[in-house]
Amino acid sequence: MRLARCSYKSGAPFWAVVDLEHEAVNPIHGSFKDWAPLVTAGQGISALSFSADPIAMQDIQLLAPVDPINRVVVAGANYLAHLIKDFGLDAPKQPVAFLKAYGALIGAHDPIRYPPLTEELDHEVELVAVIGKDEIDPADPLASVLGYTVGNDVSSRDLQRSGAKGIGMDLFAAKSQDLTTGVGPWIVTRDEFPQGSPQLRLTLAVNGEVRQDGNTAEMTWDVGELIAFVQARSSFRCGDILFTGSPAGVGMGTGRFLNPGDVVEASVEGIGTLRNVVSEKNA
Amino acid sequence: MRLARCSYKSGAPFWAVVDLEHEAVNPIHGSFKDWAPLVTAGQGISALSFSADPIAMQDIQLLAPVDPINRVVVAGANYLAHLIKDFGLDAPKQPVAFLKAYGALIGAHDPIRYPPLTEELDHEVELVAVIGKDEIDPADPLASVLGYTVGNDVSSRDLQRSGAKGIGMDLFAAKSQDLTTGVGPWIVTRDEFPQGSPQLRLTLAVNGEVRQDGNTAEMTWDVGELIAFVQARSSFRCGDILFTGSPAGVGMGTGRFLNPGDVVEASVEGIGTLRNVVSEKNA
Repeated sequence: MRLARCSYKSGAPFWAVVDLEHEAVNPIHGSFKDWAPLVTAGQGISALSFSADPIAMQDIQLLAPVDPINRVVVAGANYLAHLIKDFGLDAPKQPVAFLKAYGALIGAHDPIRYPPLTEELDHEVELVAVIGKDEIDPADPLASVLGYTVGNDVSSRDLQRSGAKGIGMDLFAAKSQDLTTGVGPWIVTRDEFPQGSPQLRLTLAVNGEVRQDGNTAEMTWDVGELIAFVQARSSFRCGDILFTGSPAGVGMGTGRFLNPGDVVEASVEGIGTLRNVVSEKNA
Repeated sequence: MRLARCSYKSGAPFWAVVDLEHEAVNPIHGSFKDWAPLVTAGQGISALSFSADPIAMQDIQLLAPVDPINRVVVAGANYLAHLIKDFGLDAPKQPVAFLKAYGALIGAHDPIRYPPLTEELDHEVELVAVIGKDEIDPADPLASVLGYTVGNDVSSRDLQRSGAKGIGMDLFAAKSQDLTTGVGPWIVTRDEFPQGSPQLRLTLAVNGEVRQDGNTAEMTWDVGELIAFVQARSSFRCGDILFTGSPAGVGMGTGRFLNPGDVVEASVEGIGTLRNVVSEKNA
């Protein structure tokens, strides 16, 4: 059975079973998430019902067979003291950007899962920009920002170092662990702040002791510059969020990592506080 | 204005305006993609209508303020000859995994956009597994596969090398460029193949000349092992897709990169062929 994602006359994408013999596609009723588990479980074509008559292959466009997403983009290495003090690295010539899995995210008051593969769980308070439109004006990237929220880019440092020689840090294993990254508690819209890139104090406390205390004005590249850097490489869509880097003071530099039961409070001035408790291991 | 993404009694997520004074949230009517551009454009609360009475803050759970996604996961460094011949690297001890932006994907017959920032656009034919359920059984990871499709993980090699010293390859800039990565032409369901990890010939031709010719049986880690490796770090969801690495013969090793007008055909035996033409620069 061949399953294709298609568009007909530039209309909305739909999934279909491809009938090569008759050079046609048969549009499937319902969403991918409804029927795909049944087909995966072995029910085959009997799991599907069809929503329309067959359409000739020559009349449809074959799209990439995966449904759309919003993205979590992280721009790291954006506070010089964090790089030098915490990682012993030199000043980079340009921002570092990577993607974070959606499943890593938790809400403002959810527990931080302690991932079983790590022994070095660490915190990173960050200002997070929320993109509110699909088009970015290169001359005014901040105009694309719906508002700002708080992030804690919780990282597994031992996994971060486990990357293959010649390839580099394993940022996927370090920063996309399920249910570790706090985001919230809400978006504060851009009109609540002065014009320009925000200049806000950001702090992170573990069990009430302040470990990180910086200001977004210390960023090497400001929010607009980060948006433009990322946009030139991979376009934002409405709903994407952008982590903007973390100031000095993380466990990578001090050797003091997070432990089960720790109360982690990440705050950005004028936005709010994430208060997440670290779970037991293998919880 | 504070915008929160919430859940009430573990129900479906919804967006709301937070009313701190009355300690309540006001659920917003319509989807994020409908109203966020209006708020971003400065219309403020007048852009919103409300779908329900206020709900007390104490009765809701604050979720991460971003809507869900499906993911594109790439496992690289999975054909030893590709690593040694094309990159001059040693055999890695474990797979390399990273995320690719959804916006990088194109369909089976779409043009490959030539990104303006690169001079070294390269090809990588790959077998792509489509995850068809949310739960992965560690003892039988292949049972989570809906089927297989073909991918061409088009990469900008000069950007890949542009990563900061000490951090490593810039896989985001190299592999998440808009509209470069062919996927398709369809998913062939797992039941069409013998049991186990697929053993299929995969080839890539540029203007009819075969540049890559391998077999998925040459993978260092097979499809099940790759799924288990990724799953241990960041859980798959139904609809996610997994690129499984590319065999030797890419431009990185030969110095022969893609040029505007090139016809690029990526094929996997038993699945089909992507046929994508490289666009003019700045097209």
